Amino acid sequence: MKDMADEVLFDFLHMEMVSHVYKEQQSSKGELDSKDRAVCVSILEGMGFRVGQGLIERMTRDSPSFKDELDMMKFICKDFWTQVFRKQIDNLRTNHQGTYVLQDNKFALLAQLSSGKQYLEDAPKYLAYSCGLVRGALSNLGLESVVTAEVSLMPSCKFQVVIQKL
Amino acid sequence: MKDMADEVLFDFLHMEMVSHVYKEQQSSKGELDSKDRAVCVSILEGMGFRVGQGLIERMTRDSPSFKDELDMMKFICKDFWTQVFRKQIDNLRTNHQGTYVLQDNKFALLAQLSSGKQYLEDAPKYLAYSCGLVRGALSNLGLESVVTAEVSLMPSCKFQVVIQKL
Repeated sequence: MKDMADEVLFDFLHMEMVSHVYKEQQSSKGELDSKDRAVCVSILEGMGFRVGQGLIERMTRDSPSFKDELDMMKFICKDFWTQVFRKQIDNLRTNHQGTYVLQDNKFALLAQLSSGKQYLEDAPKYLAYSCGLVRGALSNLGLESVVTAEVSLMPSCKFQVVIQKL
Repeated sequence: MKDMADEVLFDFLHMEMVSHVYKEQQSSKGELDSKDRAVCVSILEGMGFRVGQGLIERMTRDSPSFKDELDMMKFICKDFWTQVFRKQIDNLRTNHQGTYVLQDNKFALLAQLSSGKQYLEDAPKYLAYSCGLVRGALSNLGLESVVTAEVSLMPSCKFQVVIQKL
């Protein structure tokens, strides 16, 4: 009983935030066009960014520093992911030039949605916040990045991280 | 390391939501007057309400039904509070006529704020969402209520629940 609710607290909060951000745009604009939707995605991404920064700061406060960039990415895939999404990333790939692909075969925030095709279009709504979380966490570790996500088959999901070299 | 982040995930998300809701009002209105602040409180309360409904539904799905109203209130004070705020309510009082006072001596969402006097004014910002959580949870158990909160000495906090008899 306890575990079930633990599992869903974050998911409920997240769903409610997504729905609030879209509703507030809609109430001022009526039907949302692609520009309005981009605004929503950017609001959610920004909220995720700040939460990601705060979280990783608490998680790494007493940790030894990381060996290298790959070491940080592994921390995101294991410890950070488990904290927020209750499982590890299933697969991490890299070209060793600053691009990383993180694959989650059963992404928590998509698992509740129906797997029908019509939901594929909606997927960006539910991924923006998490892209922000990752970007915020990395930023706090000293890595500036661009994080995007794509869904091909629900509820599996790929996050692409491109580290911005200075 | 793990536990610290567990503790703060909800708190970070909550802070970020509060700050977003106030900022979006501010950006359209400039300085917030008391009416604008009431709008913010009501938005946050509504978000909490829907999350509270969803959470309690999951938590009680396999539970035996409750004996009476007091039994439900005890569930809110123990199980529900522990899920969301990581501790139980410290004191529950009732007049046995549908009014309940729930006292939390170290309320999680206030514990991060400084205890300076200037923060007392800000307290409603940080309590609205939680009032909604309680009202939503009770509503899902079949009790319509009015939930308010007050802070006299940070970070202790009292929630007053008045059950609306039909």
